Amino acid sequence: MQIDGRDWRTIWPVEGHRAFEVIDQRVLPHRFETVRLSELAQAAEAIHNMTVRGAPLIGVTAAYGLALQANADASDDALQAAGRTLKASRPTAVNLAWAVDKTLASLLALPSAQRARAAWQAAAALAEADVATNAAIGRQGLALLRARAAKKAPGERLNVLTHCNAGWLATVDWGTALSPLYQAAQAGLPLHVWVDETRPRNQGASLTAWELGAQGIACTVIADNAGGHLMQHGQVDAVIVGCDRVTARGDVCNKIGTYLKALAAWDNGVPFYVAMPLSTLDMSLRDGLNEIPIEERDGREVTHLRGRAADGSDVEVQPVPQGATAANPAFDVTPARLVTALITERGVVPASPEGIQTLEPWR
Amino acid sequence: MQIDGRDWRTIWPVEGHRAFEVIDQRVLPHRFETVRLSELAQAAEAIHNMTVRGAPLIGVTAAYGLALQANADASDDALQAAGRTLKASRPTAVNLAWAVDKTLASLLALPSAQRARAAWQAAAALAEADVATNAAIGRQGLALLRARAAKKAPGERLNVLTHCNAGWLATVDWGTALSPLYQAAQAGLPLHVWVDETRPRNQGASLTAWELGAQGIACTVIADNAGGHLMQHGQVDAVIVGCDRVTARGDVCNKIGTYLKALAAWDNGVPFYVAMPLSTLDMSLRDGLNEIPIEERDGREVTHLRGRAADGSDVEVQPVPQGATAANPAFDVTPARLVTALITERGVVPASPEGIQTLEPWR
Repeated sequence: MQIDGRDWRTIWPVEGHRAFEVIDQRVLPHRFETVRLSELAQAAEAIHNMTVRGAPLIGVTAAYGLALQANADASDDALQAAGRTLKASRPTAVNLAWAVDKTLASLLALPSAQRARAAWQAAAALAEADVATNAAIGRQGLALLRARAAKKAPGERLNVLTHCNAGWLATVDWGTALSPLYQAAQAGLPLHVWVDETRPRNQGASLTAWELGAQGIACTVIADNAGGHLMQHGQVDAVIVGCDRVTARGDVCNKIGTYLKALAAWDNGVPFYVAMPLSTLDMSLRDGLNEIPIEERDGREVTHLRGRAADGSDVEVQPVPQGATAANPAFDVTPARLVTALITERGVVPASPEGIQTLEPWR
Repeated sequence: MQIDGRDWRTIWPVEGHRAFEVIDQRVLPHRFETVRLSELAQAAEAIHNMTVRGAPLIGVTAAYGLALQANADASDDALQAAGRTLKASRPTAVNLAWAVDKTLASLLALPSAQRARAAWQAAAALAEADVATNAAIGRQGLALLRARAAKKAPGERLNVLTHCNAGWLATVDWGTALSPLYQAAQAGLPLHVWVDETRPRNQGASLTAWELGAQGIACTVIADNAGGHLMQHGQVDAVIVGCDRVTARGDVCNKIGTYLKALAAWDNGVPFYVAMPLSTLDMSLRDGLNEIPIEERDGREVTHLRGRAADGSDVEVQPVPQGATAANPAFDVTPARLVTALITERGVVPASPEGIQTLEPWR
């Protein structure tokens, strides 16, 4: 995406493959900064502390992390240990394990002297594949949005609600849920986006609002509580969200609160779409509610909140009483029955075993 | 309620009926301060700027506001103008208009020389009636909670989820939704409360968590997004919320986001109770979704958030990008079909025309 006239991706190699850089997503929207990562531990920590986040992007970051390890020590043991470290950095998104396993398998098949070079190539290839996948998801989603826009009266805006950030910042470029929106805007559709704030980390308020604003797309930030009311009053034409893991029967794990929006969409006849790169599909699971591990994050993310103070400084404030306890499940599972369709790079399919079967081979 | 060993209500007359005082709910939970109001305009502003909030309490505040006006000028014109000012201070809760109309009718029937004294008496009577109503709601709700607790295994806690603040701070004392919880705790039920943060004004995180904590009731603050996930995993035994207006067929208007929790409760077979003093019933309306006016508040409540900084100061921070737009509908309507029952001071009834009919006379 272009920011102030310059092309950016969220991750790129530097120093002749001795390090890579990422956009620091913890300081957006008030500062745009990049971070250089040159050791495996730094890459794992960047995933863990959410310097980078978003299921597709943490997969690519893990691949670059393996490349850093291959530079330092490309032995089987070292690479396998690195894979375990990276996979442990976040538990829910399947893309992370997928990227690690796929990259490791290709590297371990090579003599160790060739592994470092191959690892950087593999990471770059994964990044390119992510961009191509997301562009394709955008084209598939655009067709859905065009059909929806055609039903609106002339001059009426097309209102799409999204939760969390599944934009280009969550991927290498384009995004998953936001890719159709970028393409719709480029195609001239009269788009307006309702941006769920997405407590507790506010990825909607901070990242999605920033992304859309930087691309000139009309958007309005709302409390997570507001979406149902807007749907009841005909103010939402479609919901599009990303996902962190989708099971073989179409249950969708995504940022906490997604399930509530899916219920409201169902109750009001609003289509609820999930943008899903095939790398997010976990064919080993069926019952998302009982089988997908849900990351429980620090309650401090609920009790404390960071933002820009009036003097321009970055301040963390606590709205809760001193000593209050908080729980912080980071994801929830939306049952397949509430999902209108999955938007994949290979087409739009029902969230059902049959729909997913049509995508075979899945990877 | 007792705070640090001293009995408090949220509102009380002072200076021999020349003013009244309230707890300033804007600075809780970090500071406990009271505000003295001695002119009508101050009372209306205290309602408007949410120094006092909660449907029952703003009704009582309006009655005291009329008493201030009666001190200054008790003519028909002056009192009627005061009534209009007070009713315009918040649009959604019906208790406000109800308290104003009821008080005005009784005052205008008197010679003007008697009105000031009568107005203070009427306000005090309204406050006493509110306390009695809420205590009765608590007893009714306690019976429901006892029945629910009886189904739990020994040693298991009874998990109740609540949204926003319908506690004693929202009333004169006891609260509506929280009254059954206070009584359950006093009765020794093993209670634990999930407290919805309640964006954008965080009344749950700040007021409900403070109230429950001050009374020694175990509670955990959660993002508004988390309740559905908790219900999916059997972590919620009942939901109890307050309300700002209930129609003749049982549609419930309450703080934005209530509808989403009602959907999740329905989807997971969790009972969803609404604590409703009869003063909140609006028999003139049927279709809550289309007939109840929903207050649209300043988007700044979404884009900016106040809390205690690490140095103990009160700071407002902005999580959204510079220039971001926000929408802020303050209430939503939960259709009667999603409400398990209404807990009133005169009994627990279905949220249906028939159920509400059994409560006649309604006031």
